[in-house]
Amino acid sequence: MALLRLTALLLLIGLCHSSPPHCSYWRLWEYLNLTTTNSFVANVRPVKSWTEVTKVKMEMILFGIVKVDEKCQTVQGHTWTTMYWSNAFLNWNTTDFCDIDVITVPRSLLWIPDIHIQEDASDPSSILESPYVNLYPDGWAMTTSRHLLTFTCQLNLNMFPFDDQECDITFSSMTASVDAILLVSQAGNDQQMTNYSKGVIITQGEWDLKNIQINTTLKVMHDNKKHSELIYTVTISRRPMLYVINFIIPLLYFLILDLASFFINEARGEKLSFKITILLSISVLLLILKDMLPSTEKKMPWIANYCIGIFALVGISVLEAMTVSYLLSFEEKVKKAPHRCSNCEDAIQLERTTSRGEF
Amino acid sequence: MALLRLTALLLLIGLCHSSPPHCSYWRLWEYLNLTTTNSFVANVRPVKSWTEVTKVKMEMILFGIVKVDEKCQTVQGHTWTTMYWSNAFLNWNTTDFCDIDVITVPRSLLWIPDIHIQEDASDPSSILESPYVNLYPDGWAMTTSRHLLTFTCQLNLNMFPFDDQECDITFSSMTASVDAILLVSQAGNDQQMTNYSKGVIITQGEWDLKNIQINTTLKVMHDNKKHSELIYTVTISRRPMLYVINFIIPLLYFLILDLASFFINEARGEKLSFKITILLSISVLLLILKDMLPSTEKKMPWIANYCIGIFALVGISVLEAMTVSYLLSFEEKVKKAPHRCSNCEDAIQLERTTSRGEF
Amino acid sequence: MALLRLTALLLLIGLCHSSPPHCSYWRLWEYLNLTTTNSFVANVRPVKSWTEVTKVKMEMILFGIVKVDEKCQTVQGHTWTTMYWSNAFLNWNTTDFCDIDVITVPRSLLWIPDIHIQEDASDPSSILESPYVNLYPDGWAMTTSRHLLTFTCQLNLNMFPFDDQECDITFSSMTASVDAILLVSQAGNDQQMTNYSKGVIITQGEWDLKNIQINTTLKVMHDNKKHSELIYTVTISRRPMLYVINFIIPLLYFLILDLASFFINEARGEKLSFKITILLSISVLLLILKDMLPSTEKKMPWIANYCIGIFALVGISVLEAMTVSYLLSFEEKVKKAPHRCSNCEDAIQLERTTSRGEF
Amino acid sequence: MALLRLTALLLLIGLCHSSPPHCSYWRLWEYLNLTTTNSFVANVRPVKSWTEVTKVKMEMILFGIVKVDEKCQTVQGHTWTTMYWSNAFLNWNTTDFCDIDVITVPRSLLWIPDIHIQEDASDPSSILESPYVNLYPDGWAMTTSRHLLTFTCQLNLNMFPFDDQECDITFSSMTASVDAILLVSQAGNDQQMTNYSKGVIITQGEWDLKNIQINTTLKVMHDNKKHSELIYTVTISRRPMLYVINFIIPLLYFLILDLASFFINEARGEKLSFKITILLSISVLLLILKDMLPSTEKKMPWIANYCIGIFALVGISVLEAMTVSYLLSFEEKVKKAPHRCSNCEDAIQLERTTSRGEF
Amino acid sequence: MALLRLTALLLLIGLCHSSPPHCSYWRLWEYLNLTTTNSFVANVRPVKSWTEVTKVKMEMILFGIVKVDEKCQTVQGHTWTTMYWSNAFLNWNTTDFCDIDVITVPRSLLWIPDIHIQEDASDPSSILESPYVNLYPDGWAMTTSRHLLTFTCQLNLNMFPFDDQECDITFSSMTASVDAILLVSQAGNDQQMTNYSKGVIITQGEWDLKNIQINTTLKVMHDNKKHSELIYTVTISRRPMLYVINFIIPLLYFLILDLASFFINEARGEKLSFKITILLSISVLLLILKDMLPSTEKKMPWIANYCIGIFALVGISVLEAMTVSYLLSFEEKVKKAPHRCSNCEDAIQLERTTSRGEF
Repeated sequence: MALLRLTALLLLIGLCHSSPPHCSYWRLWEYLNLTTTNSFVANVRPVKSWTEVTKVKMEMILFGIVKVDEKCQTVQGHTWTTMYWSNAFLNWNTTDFCDIDVITVPRSLLWIPDIHIQEDASDPSSILESPYVNLYPDGWAMTTSRHLLTFTCQLNLNMFPFDDQECDITFSSMTASVDAILLVSQAGNDQQMTNYSKGVIITQGEWDLKNIQINTTLKVMHDNKKHSELIYTVTISRRPMLYVINFIIPLLYFLILDLASFFINEARGEKLSFKITILLSISVLLLILKDMLPSTEKKMPWIANYCIGIFALVGISVLEAMTVSYLLSFEEKVKKAPHRCSNCEDAIQLERTTSRGEF
Repeated sequence: MALLRLTALLLLIGLCHSSPPHCSYWRLWEYLNLTTTNSFVANVRPVKSWTEVTKVKMEMILFGIVKVDEKCQTVQGHTWTTMYWSNAFLNWNTTDFCDIDVITVPRSLLWIPDIHIQEDASDPSSILESPYVNLYPDGWAMTTSRHLLTFTCQLNLNMFPFDDQECDITFSSMTASVDAILLVSQAGNDQQMTNYSKGVIITQGEWDLKNIQINTTLKVMHDNKKHSELIYTVTISRRPMLYVINFIIPLLYFLILDLASFFINEARGEKLSFKITILLSISVLLLILKDMLPSTEKKMPWIANYCIGIFALVGISVLEAMTVSYLLSFEEKVKKAPHRCSNCEDAIQLERTTSRGEF
Repeated sequence: MALLRLTALLLLIGLCHSSPPHCSYWRLWEYLNLTTTNSFVANVRPVKSWTEVTKVKMEMILFGIVKVDEKCQTVQGHTWTTMYWSNAFLNWNTTDFCDIDVITVPRSLLWIPDIHIQEDASDPSSILESPYVNLYPDGWAMTTSRHLLTFTCQLNLNMFPFDDQECDITFSSMTASVDAILLVSQAGNDQQMTNYSKGVIITQGEWDLKNIQINTTLKVMHDNKKHSELIYTVTISRRPMLYVINFIIPLLYFLILDLASFFINEARGEKLSFKITILLSISVLLLILKDMLPSTEKKMPWIANYCIGIFALVGISVLEAMTVSYLLSFEEKVKKAPHRCSNCEDAIQLERTTSRGEF
Repeated sequence: MALLRLTALLLLIGLCHSSPPHCSYWRLWEYLNLTTTNSFVANVRPVKSWTEVTKVKMEMILFGIVKVDEKCQTVQGHTWTTMYWSNAFLNWNTTDFCDIDVITVPRSLLWIPDIHIQEDASDPSSILESPYVNLYPDGWAMTTSRHLLTFTCQLNLNMFPFDDQECDITFSSMTASVDAILLVSQAGNDQQMTNYSKGVIITQGEWDLKNIQINTTLKVMHDNKKHSELIYTVTISRRPMLYVINFIIPLLYFLILDLASFFINEARGEKLSFKITILLSISVLLLILKDMLPSTEKKMPWIANYCIGIFALVGISVLEAMTVSYLLSFEEKVKKAPHRCSNCEDAIQLERTTSRGEF
Repeated sequence: MALLRLTALLLLIGLCHSSPPHCSYWRLWEYLNLTTTNSFVANVRPVKSWTEVTKVKMEMILFGIVKVDEKCQTVQGHTWTTMYWSNAFLNWNTTDFCDIDVITVPRSLLWIPDIHIQEDASDPSSILESPYVNLYPDGWAMTTSRHLLTFTCQLNLNMFPFDDQECDITFSSMTASVDAILLVSQAGNDQQMTNYSKGVIITQGEWDLKNIQINTTLKVMHDNKKHSELIYTVTISRRPMLYVINFIIPLLYFLILDLASFFINEARGEKLSFKITILLSISVLLLILKDMLPSTEKKMPWIANYCIGIFALVGISVLEAMTVSYLLSFEEKVKKAPHRCSNCEDAIQLERTTSRGEF
């Protein structure tokens, strides 16, 4: 078996030699010691001294906002992440290897930084990582991943549907402290990043991307060590048009109709059913509101106050209409009762007069 | 092949030697015997004598409550779990290894305690484990995991929507008894834990985190052996505002309107349609209630009793209105019938009188 | 490399020797020949002669009923399954190995019976298997698994919502006939099992666990061989309270109101709109019923008959009211026409009389 | 290490020898050359000459129809698939191996035909394959799989809800042409298959299994080669009862009521609101219809025509009622105007007469 | 062990030799050096010189459009993708190997181009790749995959439901620039492709496939290098029939009814409730519209304008009716007041006259 393997190897080398020898990837592969699975290279942080820090550059492009779930307080978007990190063992002199400036290596053969997004609430299966890592001559490695990212974000719904949301996407290492992994951002400045993202964004649903800001900080974590963090702060603002048209204007309209219904003649017998119909439709809208917004106590969203205000106004107006109607009918009864009597008396009087006059 | 491997190894070692020799991770890696997959270290509980107990410290941070499903009796939240355990074989003297105080090792090379959450009802794919384990010089190992945890909890909905829920998250080993794995909690005291969680919690949806309590117990399990358990008891309370505004107040309002409708004049012909409209809208709210709450028998939630009570009151009022209306119209008929007669008689009398007077 | 490995091994053994030598797991590990992946032990049924049967004991605890989907005819529940099986190669004398009475081994190193649930309709990812197998000195192996089990069950919905359902959960081997794998149940008797499950059950949603029965049978399968089956028959009964309150009582109430509406005075002009409103609300309830129950032909659920019956009754009553109203108004016209004439004649007569009397 | 392994091996063989030697699986295992992972056996089509065809027998049992999604045009069902194929290298003489007539081998050690279902639209995780393959002495291999299969099917909804659907489930190899893999059906005849499936089917939801037909064909595929296909044509028919009760009858009923409403007295003032209520409820049913059926142009389902027809009829009847009512009131006005005049004149005349007569 | 392996190998070779020796796959397998996992062949781009470009031919067949999500701006369809690429190391002379023209190799043994779809928004588990790769004698490799593809597409909903959508499906390499991987399209021309797809498409839901166009471009990507892209531009058009029938026609109908309601006699007391009922049903349709379409600001879809227009018209008409009714009743009051006076005076006058005449 061993002989066979050797033969195969030689054969392969032979094949390679038939081409210009130093221009195949084979020699570099051999030089980088990747011919066999190397437990150390694949598993340990690639630094020469353990006190060295591994720099990791993260670059995230947001190319789509799918939806914002107000109930679960999550935002869903499409991101494309490129990660660069330094590797002290895998570098080469391009002049020695026929100017090879990049080689792709499968993920499993290398140590990969365990960077994750702290706010991530998506299924781990929603990430698609490239199967290969690019190695560059200067010892940098690069890998990319596409992510249908669902991340939690404390939404402030007070101004709904005219709200802006500011959401953080925080990258950090799951286990390594800042002594081991230091996160840096590659992008030049925030404005440039924002502009680029605004350019490539394909779908935004009902949201407008306003701004992207990038910061790096240190935070003391669960193990009482400082961890490096890279924070993308994404500011988005809702496009309120459809909510205005479908929710705010009809509600306002119902209020106007309710006020206008004071001019309906009491006698027509349509006033109360008109008003109760309006009240019912507002209570239907209230239930729809419950489906849209979560139940929060500290500060009610103004749209909830708006709804309740209109509901209360219309409700009071129904009660008022009933009271007025009752008072009017009561008054009428009071009036009628003596009126009839006098009427009757008049009639009797008249009759008497008439009868008398005939005599 | 073997020669090649050796060369590569030597080369690597050579590389390492060019740096301060004892400050690379390589020597430690070699010392810990991790250069090749070791079936024993990766698969068997790391104790020197089998009678020794492996202590496992669990630390869970709840940093988000997403939603509570009243029908399925589940609670969904984001948790961050840190697990520490002792490893008798993997320890080192920091002075021998250039003060290395932590080394990261892939999960597959080590035995990991099989701790699970007994109430867990989430898809196994909803957990994201760090790919690496941190090893410390004193033989402790640490790993972390992020979890979108859905766990069952016997919800008590009697006081809905003014309810507090107390849910247990119980950690235990899937196979090992207390003789092998002993769960301990690292956190100092409960109050400190609660405060920390309240501080880091990002999203709470419509719930307020009240308290977190940590207990450890022993329970006799399926194999008639005592198993160690670590229980986090999480107390949360619902924010009832939106339910009050959207459900309780409108229902109450309909009751008031129904009672007020007794003052509507019988003659106007709007009373019954007014009342039946209210009855219908209450039955719509009843159906919405069915969507919110599960069908339980032992003790009805008070909100169900509230709904049924109002439904019954309004229903009886409709019947009463009909009866009253019928009785009134019957009375009228009875009155009219003789009245007309007397009228007629009067008229006849009058005629007779008139005629007579002519004679 | 080989030297290195040997050194590491010796070192490890050395470590072990420093503790009481025969009390480490190492010697047992070695004795059981698990130091390296053994294709035979990991892949072939562990019997000394192929004619021997491997006994598999299954023990399932149902600790939660989540929901029953009437449309898809599935039941969802949480189960905890413990599987024991005999292994002829992996046993030891406890006295030789310092009284070790259990050792945990990763799943991948052993042959595991391919037992599945025939009615299983859940995603394979909904099962969480313990990563380790417990081995006992007498050659028995044990593993456990937690399952969010969705299983099909031919639901009998004739009596909905007062229905009891009897569902089978059938364990059998996917490939092996009864000559290879024999399923036995460990639990003493059914009553004990039922009581235990009733004790541990956490969440039952709208269902009550009535009974669990355990049977073993043989069935001829696709390959014309007898396969061993272990059947858990779970009997659950629905808690009908909320359906009664939300569906049956309102429907009955609408019928009563419809009947009572015969007493509404024809003259008031509210009768028809009252009745049509009731009819519409019943048709809304019919549509909700369609969402709850599947369309089956053989025997309609009584609740469907109940709904249709009430719908038909109310419908007929609407038609009746219209007919009566038409006949009444027709009669009135007929009456009025001559009445007016006679009136007119009377008036004419009177006038004449009056005029005459003047002469 | 090597020594250790050998010892273990010998030990194992020794164990085996203590039992009747030729009755253990070990000798067969060794004979079949499965002791180590064999790249060739596991990866290449097992034929002696590459021109030989590998016959694959597929046998699918449909034991449950879960649901049909009319919008996405998919059908979901539970299937149990048994696949047999010939293996030229793995066969044995039963007399040499103690009459062993079957041995189970893990999937990873063998080449498995890459048969898939062309119409499959389900998540790959919805399939549960048996972890083992059964090998028989004559060189046939067998494996089974359970599948919660969602497959696309061009539904013909013209006759909804009285529709029959004919769906194909087409098995074929993903890469191999008919020169390499030939699909054959094991089942004797279709009628037998249909009867068997009808017997074992557990849940059918709202569908009735009518017939299963099995055909094999050749089709030219993407690579311009003939591929072997095995087609199961499943015919199912919908049970329309609930749709009739909940949709067709109420609609018809509304039409009858609308026609009957012509008899409502104009004077009662209920006619128009009666009719508009009917119109609105039909438009609600129209929206429900939109949720049930996809928007197709070529040929409208008759139920859509039925709905629109009734909507149009009722709509026209509302307009008609309004026109009639307007004409009547117009006529009345015209009549009243001169009538009053004549009345007045009469009254004046009468007065004059009366006055005159006094003179 | 080694001896054993060798024996097995020889045995296998022996088996092969008993068949016509050069017609088994074995010799080719050996020649291609696939007998053992080869890290280089499996992991590095198979070119002889690194400056060579690997050509990748992609061929995608769209055989089903499932649904379009207007809210999330995604399109779901079934695709079948065939990928060809050149491999410089794996080729053979067919005459040397008994005319073998294809051999299937497992994916894991080869380097596979990392082509992905840029717009892909589907779960990575929704792809089913063939487990094998076909190798051809000229060094081309082929693999296929079936995909339930959900991809983002900037939908233009201005003309909804009469809209055409143009969606791009862009294939590109995740890591390699155009210097390494060049994407080419195999299909002859677009028209042929469109026709073929139109032929094989099984399910289209409510969409019609209009056209498929194929382009190749170069784009500068995140790493400032040119990447090769292959773009399928799919044009689909919606079948609007059901939307017209269920949404547009009823809305129009309500407008007509509202206009027609001007002819309802004021005196009948049905006008206002008729109009408010229409207004409410339009507001229900508005809410349904909100569920269908996302909130976009730049340009409102015409159907939203259509809805709002009709809502506004009906709303104004309700106000108008109320104003008219009020003015009429006001006028009547004004008229009545003096009329009664004059009446009274007349009556008084008459009485006086009558009385006088008696004198």
